[in-house]
Amino acid sequence: MERVEGGAAGPVMVLVRPQMGENIGAAARAMLNFGLDRMRIVAPRDGWPNPKAVAMASGAGRVLERAGLFPDLDAALADCDRVYATTARGRELVKSVLSPEAAMAEAAALTAGGKRVAVLFGPERAGLENDDIIRANAIVTVPVNPEFYSLNLAQCVLLLAYEWQRQKGAAMPAGMAVDLASQLEVARLGDHLEERLEAARFFFPPDKAPGMKRNLRNMLTRWGLTRAEVQTLHGILRQLSRRE
Amino acid sequence: MERVEGGAAGPVMVLVRPQMGENIGAAARAMLNFGLDRMRIVAPRDGWPNPKAVAMASGAGRVLERAGLFPDLDAALADCDRVYATTARGRELVKSVLSPEAAMAEAAALTAGGKRVAVLFGPERAGLENDDIIRANAIVTVPVNPEFYSLNLAQCVLLLAYEWQRQKGAAMPAGMAVDLASQLEVARLGDHLEERLEAARFFFPPDKAPGMKRNLRNMLTRWGLTRAEVQTLHGILRQLSRRE
Repeated sequence: MERVEGGAAGPVMVLVRPQMGENIGAAARAMLNFGLDRMRIVAPRDGWPNPKAVAMASGAGRVLERAGLFPDLDAALADCDRVYATTARGRELVKSVLSPEAAMAEAAALTAGGKRVAVLFGPERAGLENDDIIRANAIVTVPVNPEFYSLNLAQCVLLLAYEWQRQKGAAMPAGMAVDLASQLEVARLGDHLEERLEAARFFFPPDKAPGMKRNLRNMLTRWGLTRAEVQTLHGILRQLSRRE
Repeated sequence: MERVEGGAAGPVMVLVRPQMGENIGAAARAMLNFGLDRMRIVAPRDGWPNPKAVAMASGAGRVLERAGLFPDLDAALADCDRVYATTARGRELVKSVLSPEAAMAEAAALTAGGKRVAVLFGPERAGLENDDIIRANAIVTVPVNPEFYSLNLAQCVLLLAYEWQRQKGAAMPAGMAVDLASQLEVARLGDHLEERLEAARFFFPPDKAPGMKRNLRNMLTRWGLTRAEVQTLHGILRQLSRRE
């Protein structure tokens, strides 16, 4: 599927399995308030294009017109260099949890260096699942009142877009100028690792295999791997698996 | 009219002539996400209490139950020490324009010192009028995309509440520990000034008087007067107006 979104180099806002067209439109408006116009939509419940989304987007219709549509999250993230998952959950995954401020400060530094950053937003009712979150390099959690959480999808997009706007003029944090691997490169490394481990009968017993694989994928994305590290790890895997 | 709102010492969110009950309820939810539960409502279009506000507030109903209802803005602000007006307008008034971040950093320092801070939000369609804005010590403007502004009332409340949450843990900025006069003290000084100026036939010609008075009120609030300064100015007015 073709990516068609255009616009300036802000983060890509990725709506994962959004349910209501109205919320997709409201998210587009929230983005454009802070100059973001690159949206990707993964497996929307009611198909695409969605007339209710267009009606709600009003003056932000061009965000929807340029939005990329993807069948699954892997496809949506293949060319992304760093991915943040907005969620109040996922704490049981070993993954950095950042404030919106810290995440968007990183994002500003990365996009200034030509990298592509994505921010994931889950479906309205249930939010992102752990299988989505493990594809992210870090979790972003809005520090809401622990006794009252009622942010809707567009409000969550709004707060991240607001922080992007605040941070994009700020200086690059030290240590963020590294040559990060893309999401696709990390996913391929994960495939390679799984393949080698399968061959080595690592995933045993079979009923534990899905959880084990999930943890491995999570580990790889959490590291924030550089291109060079990915190459090194491929080489290690190849070398370790050689059979004379 | 009695003030009845309670809760912890965050800023008071003042909805000025709100139109839709749903938006009042959504504003209550936005506030409570970031731990703010003190709302004041000035001259709501559809009266008060409003069943639509209650329905929309859902889990944030207690914010509405404790909300103070006021017939006009002066009554709502009488006991407030510092007042911020959220608006994208008012630039023609001589008034500081702060980012949400800067305003809530000040607010955090002031409330930590026991001061009462208010943030004003205008009616949905038209926003605050200049006659509202002159009652504020400073303007707060969310730095939105100049080509696209679509923040609704609850989203604007949400962004200010979010900034409050971010700033309230921060250190007190230098120079904010002064003993500011309350809004009522400044208003009384304004009354005194007008009365003395009326007696001195200052407001001439008569058709210019309303504009002249507005500019004077704006000047007094812009200064961010201390208690001591207010006393000094009263003394000056009395002294200047003495007729032997």
